[in-house]
Amino acid sequence: MSVTAVSPGSFDPVTYGHLDVLERAASRFDRLIVGVLRNESKHPLFAIEERIELLRAATAHMPNVEIEGFSGLLVDFCHARGVRVIVKGLRAVSDFEYELQMAQMNSRLGDVETLFLTTSPVYSFLSSSLVKEVARYGGDVSDFVPPVVAERLRQRLGDQAAG
Amino acid sequence: MSVTAVSPGSFDPVTYGHLDVLERAASRFDRLIVGVLRNESKHPLFAIEERIELLRAATAHMPNVEIEGFSGLLVDFCHARGVRVIVKGLRAVSDFEYELQMAQMNSRLGDVETLFLTTSPVYSFLSSSLVKEVARYGGDVSDFVPPVVAERLRQRLGDQAAG
Amino acid sequence: MSVTAVSPGSFDPVTYGHLDVLERAASRFDRLIVGVLRNESKHPLFAIEERIELLRAATAHMPNVEIEGFSGLLVDFCHARGVRVIVKGLRAVSDFEYELQMAQMNSRLGDVETLFLTTSPVYSFLSSSLVKEVARYGGDVSDFVPPVVAERLRQRLGDQAAG
Amino acid sequence: MSVTAVSPGSFDPVTYGHLDVLERAASRFDRLIVGVLRNESKHPLFAIEERIELLRAATAHMPNVEIEGFSGLLVDFCHARGVRVIVKGLRAVSDFEYELQMAQMNSRLGDVETLFLTTSPVYSFLSSSLVKEVARYGGDVSDFVPPVVAERLRQRLGDQAAG
Amino acid sequence: MSVTAVSPGSFDPVTYGHLDVLERAASRFDRLIVGVLRNESKHPLFAIEERIELLRAATAHMPNVEIEGFSGLLVDFCHARGVRVIVKGLRAVSDFEYELQMAQMNSRLGDVETLFLTTSPVYSFLSSSLVKEVARYGGDVSDFVPPVVAERLRQRLGDQAAG
Amino acid sequence: MSVTAVSPGSFDPVTYGHLDVLERAASRFDRLIVGVLRNESKHPLFAIEERIELLRAATAHMPNVEIEGFSGLLVDFCHARGVRVIVKGLRAVSDFEYELQMAQMNSRLGDVETLFLTTSPVYSFLSSSLVKEVARYGGDVSDFVPPVVAERLRQRLGDQAAG
Repeated sequence: MSVTAVSPGSFDPVTYGHLDVLERAASRFDRLIVGVLRNESKHPLFAIEERIELLRAATAHMPNVEIEGFSGLLVDFCHARGVRVIVKGLRAVSDFEYELQMAQMNSRLGDVETLFLTTSPVYSFLSSSLVKEVARYGGDVSDFVPPVVAERLRQRLGDQAAG
Repeated sequence: MSVTAVSPGSFDPVTYGHLDVLERAASRFDRLIVGVLRNESKHPLFAIEERIELLRAATAHMPNVEIEGFSGLLVDFCHARGVRVIVKGLRAVSDFEYELQMAQMNSRLGDVETLFLTTSPVYSFLSSSLVKEVARYGGDVSDFVPPVVAERLRQRLGDQAAG
Repeated sequence: MSVTAVSPGSFDPVTYGHLDVLERAASRFDRLIVGVLRNESKHPLFAIEERIELLRAATAHMPNVEIEGFSGLLVDFCHARGVRVIVKGLRAVSDFEYELQMAQMNSRLGDVETLFLTTSPVYSFLSSSLVKEVARYGGDVSDFVPPVVAERLRQRLGDQAAG
Repeated sequence: MSVTAVSPGSFDPVTYGHLDVLERAASRFDRLIVGVLRNESKHPLFAIEERIELLRAATAHMPNVEIEGFSGLLVDFCHARGVRVIVKGLRAVSDFEYELQMAQMNSRLGDVETLFLTTSPVYSFLSSSLVKEVARYGGDVSDFVPPVVAERLRQRLGDQAAG
Repeated sequence: MSVTAVSPGSFDPVTYGHLDVLERAASRFDRLIVGVLRNESKHPLFAIEERIELLRAATAHMPNVEIEGFSGLLVDFCHARGVRVIVKGLRAVSDFEYELQMAQMNSRLGDVETLFLTTSPVYSFLSSSLVKEVARYGGDVSDFVPPVVAERLRQRLGDQAAG
Repeated sequence: MSVTAVSPGSFDPVTYGHLDVLERAASRFDRLIVGVLRNESKHPLFAIEERIELLRAATAHMPNVEIEGFSGLLVDFCHARGVRVIVKGLRAVSDFEYELQMAQMNSRLGDVETLFLTTSPVYSFLSSSLVKEVARYGGDVSDFVPPVVAERLRQRLGDQAAG
C-alpha cells in the first residue's frame, strides 16, 4: 500500500517547528503533499506564492515532498489528489481541541483521516506569529527559521523595527 | 514503502471505542500489530490471555491485524518487530497531555514515531473502566462493547452486582 | 415552583448542536426563552431578524420555547423577564473556561445562576462558524443544520463558492 | 412542573465548597436529594453513616434538601426516586473532562440529564482531600468546613498530627 | 542581591485583579516596574498616557512600584533597565498555555526568567475586556476596578450605553 | 531585601528537569532551600535519606542551595525557616491546575506566595515516574538524570528488569 499524505497550513512563514513535523511525516509516508492555504482574509504577511517559494527552498532536501497552494475546503483538496490521510503537528492543549474539531469535521465531510504528530519539545513554543513579532522589532530569529526565511523577514519587516 | 504500525493498550476489556480506532488504523497501514500490555501491577480484571482472546474475536474481520501481548518498554516491543510507528487514539485533553509526554519519551528512547487518531465523537465518553463499573452494577453495556465482551463481563462481574 | 430559563447565543445560524441543547433544556424547565444576541460588531452572516426567524422555524415543535432578540447585558435581559436561570451547552474545555468566567460575572452582577448541559458527543465538533465555512465552499451541511437553514445558507453563500 | 434533582458525591467530609453548590441548587429546584456514595473501595475517612450525619447537620437550614446514601449506579438511584436531573458543581478543567464523560454515560444509560453549576471562585481551591491533609497535620480548617466538621476532623485526625 | 522585576500588560484599564498581582509581586521584590504595552494595533479604549495615569493613581500606596510605557519586545525593555525577572499573574488554563509559550520565547531571546503568581480566586473571573463590556451597557463595575477607573469608564462609555 | 525561597518536591529521584528549575531558581534568589517531602504513604523507590543524598550530589555546584527533608504541611516548613516564597516548576496544563489549587491553599493557610517557573521545553516530557519505568526495564536513562542517579537506579532496579 503506497500512502500519500497531505500536511496543510498557512506557513506564514515556515518555521523550524513546521520543518520538524514535515521531516518526520515525510519519513513515514511514501509521498507528502504540503498544502499551503491561500487564506487571504487573514491578511498574511507573505503572499501565497512567496510562502510556497520559501517552503520549496526549505524542503529541497526531502525528495518525496511537494508544495502546492490551495483554497476552499481541505477535504476537496485531498479528494482532488486521491489522498485520504492528513498529517498535522500538535503542540499544545489549545491546538488539540481545535484540531480535534476539524479532524472530526473532515472525517464526516469526506472520509479523510487526520493523523497527528507531536511537535518536538524543542520547538513547542514556536509559532509563525511569534516569529513575525520578534522580527518586527529587530529581534534575532535565526534559531527559529531557516536562513532564507530569516533573510526575507529582515527585508520585509526590517524597516518597521520599532524602538 | 510497506508500513507496519503498533497500537498499544491494556484493553481490559476492548470497547467499541478501541475497535473504532483499530479499524481506522488498519485501513491506513499495511499491517497493524495490537500490543496488549501485561500490566499486572494494575490488577486488570481480565488476565492478559483473556484480553488477547477477546481482542482476537473482536478483530476477526480485519485481515491485517494481529494481536500480541507484551511487557516491558513499548519501544523495545516495537524494535523487536522492526516497527517505527505507534498509532493511538486521542479522546480528551487529559489523554492528550499524558500521551504527548509518552510520545516524546518514545521518540527519544528509540526513534519511534507516535501518530494519533481522534476517537470518533460517538465513543468519546467510553473507557474500559467506566464499562466495568457499569457492568459491575448490572447495567447494560451492549452499546459499548462487542457481544462476546458483554457476555464475558456478565459472567465475571454478574455475581458481584451490588444493591 | 415554575422555572423559566434563558438560553443565550448568537445562533448565526442555529445548528443541530444548538437544537440538541435547546430540546433537552426545554424538557427540564417549564418555559425556555432563547435570547438571540444582536452582536452587530461581530458582523454576523445573518441579521438578527433572520436568525430569530430561522430559530422559530427550527423550534416550532417545542411549545414551551420562545425566541427573542436582545442587546446589552445578559443579566439585564434576564431581570427584565424575571428570570434567574441561564442554561448553556458545554462542548469543550476551551468553551468551559470562558463560560465559567461569564457565569461567575453574571452571578456577581445580577444573582443569575448559570446551569450547563453537556453537548451530545455526536455534535461536539459542530459550530456555526465551521458550518458557514463548509457552506461557503459548497460543502454539504445537511447533516449539521435543519433543512430551512441549509437552504438559506445555500442562497446566501452559494454565489461566493470558491475554487 | 415540580422538579426534583439529585446531587451526588462522596462528601468525605462536606466542605463549604459543597455547601455553596447545594445551596444554589436547592434555591433553583423544588426538592434536592443529596446522594452520598458509599464508595468503600476508596477507603473513606468517615463511614457513610457519619458522612450523612455531617451533611444533615450542615444542611439543616435548607428545608427542601434530603440526604440519602447509595451504592451502585447513579442512574439506578435516580430512577428509583423518579428523578431525571443530576446537579453537580464544576471547579476546574480537569473536573470538567471527567464530569462530561460521566454525564454522557448517564444520559446514555438512563435518560438522566446532568446540569452543572460553577463553584464559587472563593472555594475553587477547596477539596475534601486537601482539607483532610491540612487537618491531618494540625492545620486550621475552620475557613473550609462547617464547625461540626472541623470538630470531627480534629477528633479523628488530631492524634495523627505529624511533626 | 537586590532584585527588580518587570510586570508587563496592556492594563486597558487596570482592574482589582491586576492590583492583587502587583501588590503581591511588590511585596516579594525590591522594586517592581510595571511595563504598559503601547499596543496601538489592538485599538485600546484608553491611550497609553491615560492607562499609565490610572495605574499611577491606583498604585500610589506602593512605594517600590514604578509605571512606564513601552513598545517593541519585552526582553528589550527588560535589558534596557538591567532587569532579568518578569512577573505575571496566571488565572486560567488558557492563560497558562500562551504565557508558557511567551516565557520560553523570552528565555530564549534574552535570558530573562518569567515568574508566575496565581491570581487570587476572588478575581479569577475578571478581565479588562469583561469590565469594559459591563461598563459599556451601564452595569456597575465598582467591585471590579478602583473608583478612579470606574469614574473614567463612566465618562468614556456612559454615552454609548445601549438598550 | 534578601530573599530565601523554598522549592518542594518528592525528588524520587531528582531528574535533569528538576535541576533545570533549581538552577534557574537559585540564580534569581539569594538562598534556595530544597524541601524533600518524606511522603512515605506513596511508597517512594528511594528512602528520604537517599533522595537527599542524591540531590546534594547533583546540586553540589550551586553554593546557595541547601537540601532538607520535611514532613507535614509545606507552610509549616516555610514558617519554621522564616520563608515566605515557594518556587515550583510548571510543565503542563495538568500540573497547572493542581499547583494552582495548592498555591491558593498555601496562600490562605500561611501567607506564603508561590512563584512558578516554566520547565525548559527540552525537559517537558520528563518525570521521575517515567524515568523509573524506563530504568525498570533496562532502558537508558543517562539523558534524563545525572550519572550518580543513573548508577543508583541501575543498582536498585537492574535486577528487576522484566522480559
